[in-house]
Amino acid sequence: MNFEILGNINSPEDVKKLNNEQLKTLCSEIRECIIDTVSKNGGHLASNLGSVELTVALHRAFNSPQDAIIFDVGHQCYTHKLLTGRFERFSSLRTEGGISGFMRPSESEHDPIITGHSSNSISAAYGIYRAKRLTNQNGSAVAVIGDGALTGGMAYEALNNVGNDKSNFIVVLNDNKMSISSNVGALSRSLTKMRNKPKYHNFKFALSKFLQKLPLIGKALYSFVFKFKEVIKGFIYKNNFFTSLGFNYLGPVDGHDIGALEELFKIAQSYNRPSLIHVITTKGKGYSYAETSPKNYHGVSPFDIDEGAKFGDKLTYSDIAGNTLCEMANTDPTICAITAAMTSGTGLSPFAEKYSDRFFDVGIAEQHAVTFCAGLKKGGMKPYFAVYSSFLQRGFDQIIHDCAIENLPVCFLIDRAGIVGEDGETHQGLFDVSYLSLIPNVEIFSPCYFDELEFYIKKSAVSSTVTAIRYPRGCESGDRPNYQIGNEFDVIKGDGKNAILTYGRLFTEALKAQKDGGFDIIKLNKIYPLSDELIKTLTKYQNIQIFEETVKNGGIGEHIVSILYNNGFENKVQIHAIENKFIAGASIESALKNNGLCADTMLRSING
Amino acid sequence: MNFEILGNINSPEDVKKLNNEQLKTLCSEIRECIIDTVSKNGGHLASNLGSVELTVALHRAFNSPQDAIIFDVGHQCYTHKLLTGRFERFSSLRTEGGISGFMRPSESEHDPIITGHSSNSISAAYGIYRAKRLTNQNGSAVAVIGDGALTGGMAYEALNNVGNDKSNFIVVLNDNKMSISSNVGALSRSLTKMRNKPKYHNFKFALSKFLQKLPLIGKALYSFVFKFKEVIKGFIYKNNFFTSLGFNYLGPVDGHDIGALEELFKIAQSYNRPSLIHVITTKGKGYSYAETSPKNYHGVSPFDIDEGAKFGDKLTYSDIAGNTLCEMANTDPTICAITAAMTSGTGLSPFAEKYSDRFFDVGIAEQHAVTFCAGLKKGGMKPYFAVYSSFLQRGFDQIIHDCAIENLPVCFLIDRAGIVGEDGETHQGLFDVSYLSLIPNVEIFSPCYFDELEFYIKKSAVSSTVTAIRYPRGCESGDRPNYQIGNEFDVIKGDGKNAILTYGRLFTEALKAQKDGGFDIIKLNKIYPLSDELIKTLTKYQNIQIFEETVKNGGIGEHIVSILYNNGFENKVQIHAIENKFIAGASIESALKNNGLCADTMLRSING
Repeated sequence: MNFEILGNINSPEDVKKLNNEQLKTLCSEIRECIIDTVSKNGGHLASNLGSVELTVALHRAFNSPQDAIIFDVGHQCYTHKLLTGRFERFSSLRTEGGISGFMRPSESEHDPIITGHSSNSISAAYGIYRAKRLTNQNGSAVAVIGDGALTGGMAYEALNNVGNDKSNFIVVLNDNKMSISSNVGALSRSLTKMRNKPKYHNFKFALSKFLQKLPLIGKALYSFVFKFKEVIKGFIYKNNFFTSLGFNYLGPVDGHDIGALEELFKIAQSYNRPSLIHVITTKGKGYSYAETSPKNYHGVSPFDIDEGAKFGDKLTYSDIAGNTLCEMANTDPTICAITAAMTSGTGLSPFAEKYSDRFFDVGIAEQHAVTFCAGLKKGGMKPYFAVYSSFLQRGFDQIIHDCAIENLPVCFLIDRAGIVGEDGETHQGLFDVSYLSLIPNVEIFSPCYFDELEFYIKKSAVSSTVTAIRYPRGCESGDRPNYQIGNEFDVIKGDGKNAILTYGRLFTEALKAQKDGGFDIIKLNKIYPLSDELIKTLTKYQNIQIFEETVKNGGIGEHIVSILYNNGFENKVQIHAIENKFIAGASIESALKNNGLCADTMLRSING
Repeated sequence: MNFEILGNINSPEDVKKLNNEQLKTLCSEIRECIIDTVSKNGGHLASNLGSVELTVALHRAFNSPQDAIIFDVGHQCYTHKLLTGRFERFSSLRTEGGISGFMRPSESEHDPIITGHSSNSISAAYGIYRAKRLTNQNGSAVAVIGDGALTGGMAYEALNNVGNDKSNFIVVLNDNKMSISSNVGALSRSLTKMRNKPKYHNFKFALSKFLQKLPLIGKALYSFVFKFKEVIKGFIYKNNFFTSLGFNYLGPVDGHDIGALEELFKIAQSYNRPSLIHVITTKGKGYSYAETSPKNYHGVSPFDIDEGAKFGDKLTYSDIAGNTLCEMANTDPTICAITAAMTSGTGLSPFAEKYSDRFFDVGIAEQHAVTFCAGLKKGGMKPYFAVYSSFLQRGFDQIIHDCAIENLPVCFLIDRAGIVGEDGETHQGLFDVSYLSLIPNVEIFSPCYFDELEFYIKKSAVSSTVTAIRYPRGCESGDRPNYQIGNEFDVIKGDGKNAILTYGRLFTEALKAQKDGGFDIIKLNKIYPLSDELIKTLTKYQNIQIFEETVKNGGIGEHIVSILYNNGFENKVQIHAIENKFIAGASIESALKNNGLCADTMLRSING
């Protein structure tokens, strides 16, 4: 491929020098580069294709890094990476040691803050903005947030805080009419109404035509009028969601018209009130497959560009969870499923289709989701909240306060528990075991195989306490040895003296190691609370090696060791888990190996 | 006192039978009872006095418990408790084993869900509402939320979710023009505008006057008009914050006019769209001191009714934190302070006054607060977020994602760490040690004395990592033995064989016990991460008893034990902490004693 223009962009300054024709070529080259890279490495495609011109316009109207530009969630920051000195390395996107799929301050001074979780951009940008004003630094800060991310309460908290300001803080709403899949919530309907108003560009064009018809004074008037702010206020809706929060509302503007975007950004900079600029973009733009079904091209695995992405028919844990809920819902009308904007990712698409009245996509709103479940339970339903481990961190207080204190048997289906692979630090599911096992009244299950996952989901329907069932990303692997499902723990017999204690996916590693090791395997199924029987069993061993795919602090290993110690256990026990650090993006296999969570290390730990 | 009417209210049914004159007397009696009880037991006064008529009207228009009424935060639920069979027991408010200061399902079927943390009412009520519809139960669910609680993102997430509904779900906004102290944020300004529109009652009165002047048909027309929904739509603002989220907006209505309130509640019930009813109340109404300065009478300690509450001049940990920040801000222009609607509670009032440009009250918005701090730090400021331990649970994900991954040295001043006393389960600061020590890149300090608190706050200004400094509610106690401030841990020498290891306030208990015990005390100051030197020191002891004012799971005790065990330590070590349960309201002293966290138990643990 020939990247004539893009190949010569070393910093945003270079983007400012281009003429319209060159900009057009640049955008084509960016799209080509993104499609090519994502087709090889996987990544977020549709939203990145939609924000190409928007990002180019931002880098022309603002001066990064002096002006901090924060893209909410990395889904839309690939163009930004390409324009800020990372074109050469871009082919390493989402590989071990390569370019991250999200903004990463450690990667570039143009990435002010990390953005792997949604809805944090306005808070962070506003903090930077206030700090610059307080310390008399030059420069500004801009948040670029999608319509999906706007469903997160955190974004609203920030808007409410900013709205009081008397300064030119700018929020850019990248409205692609859907967040991850189709957008939900009442605000989304409001946005639709706004979208249907005449676009900035059309209005300007009509006005210009009209004025230029007036002889002589036409051009002068045209230029005068467009310098005059009051005209622009014609684009400000009286009393919409944003104005009620104290923002100037500017828009809607065509997000693929670089000139119009630049002009609005500059106008907003001249105000002494915060502005929200409503930009309409087309998700997937420039790649026909993605434009036609943007939902399917949100996040993709490697694919053939000409043939489009193939969507695997290989069953994942998520599919099993979703299918099990469908099966249960078929006979029990009180089963209901909740997602926070992750219908497809959590395997709930079939449920959403079959049981739409009992399916709730609440938006990127984990806080609300948890408490909404508490209410559903209180009202007589059996709610299942399917959510990624790292995103449930947003609902931590609600699990404690709204579920656990009064012990409402809500069930959390914790997807992407453990190492998740290429998405890296922000998405690793390494904390849930610790943050859940510290909460009274929570039972945690960690099945290893599909049939176990199904079993524990079904079992939880009659649970009398808050239940969390955690399972990894992806597909089942390894053979299933012979044991009966449903025990709190199983012992896969070996020498009876040495034991590997583990749970979840790592059990398959233990099985591999056992072939050469001859030790016992203690496989936990219910990982918390720990039964007296388990402790009694453990006290018989001379050497226990605990392996956990989670942080060590607050993990099951620590709970076990402290109980054993309290009971006077004097033999050897060691914990192998993630030691107080974040884990960067890499394949799951590689990350497990690098952190000593594999058959080799297990074998060595027993013998060492 | 003579509670002629209130004394005979056994359930909401009895409230429905009263005539206007009796209702007036009832409200007076309720106020008398609340003022009397709170003057003896302490509690939330001003907001409860403001919501008397509103609650009476709710119980006349709805049928609790079939209709679930959820008061957001207990601050406004005392009248509800008095009207739902708890008058006799009300004198036990906020005492050990007595009536809780918040809604408690375990206390009454009229309390659908626990409400100690703000902004959860709409989520919970909507969950109950949907469940009732899905299971064809009778009854409804109503959320009553204050203007302060509306600054919480969770409330917005719920509004956004509800807005799509085609049903008569009702949210009552109890707007008393301030949440805990004066309200903040842009929405608050919008509410002020709405408030200044003509009230429902005034409008109705004027219309009725006009219509009744028309002879003969006047009365009929009047009655007809008021049955006709379209008239009511005159009260619906076109395009305000709530309508943009899909709600009917009804109001504003005088929150002390029971008749007008009842009427609006019934009208809203007849709709097939969700409604928000904007009710204006006067905080502190009926007690002149509280009405004049509601801020001071939000939460109060026992006081003399005639003389009003006295505001202690005894210094608290919160005061020390606030004063230290002031002192630092005096010489360092980058010091700034952030609160989530707790300016006074966290001792920040002096800072807010002296350094108003560097003081940020962001509303009840802990998620935003944490990430806003990350932004401020990134922009060159030194942000201190002063926040109660149990409320910081709301910012858990943001600490991980926005602060710790990139290791931005934000400082959290964690007030109300440990047992908090009468507020009970929802407010206990028993989880922070666990939920913070599981996050990489976080350092935790737990000073015992004022001078230590001051020292660690100052020290954190130059920290290169995320810092948490936790301290208890209330005043310093006990004598300070002789040791130099600033060590990661101190050893108060005794027999050199036995040791009590503890931190924070419990150190004073250890000192008491040491007089009779002769053991060493190991006082942790930096409680996490643990230094090699500490571990080396500990290995010399024959018997280590660890005492922590926190949950045991994931606490420092477990971290220590697992390290000791890994290092081959073979002597005795035991952890004494809160065992996997929630702690009910009781005095701090009593709760510590009941959970074995006191000098007596320490002494016994060494000898036993």
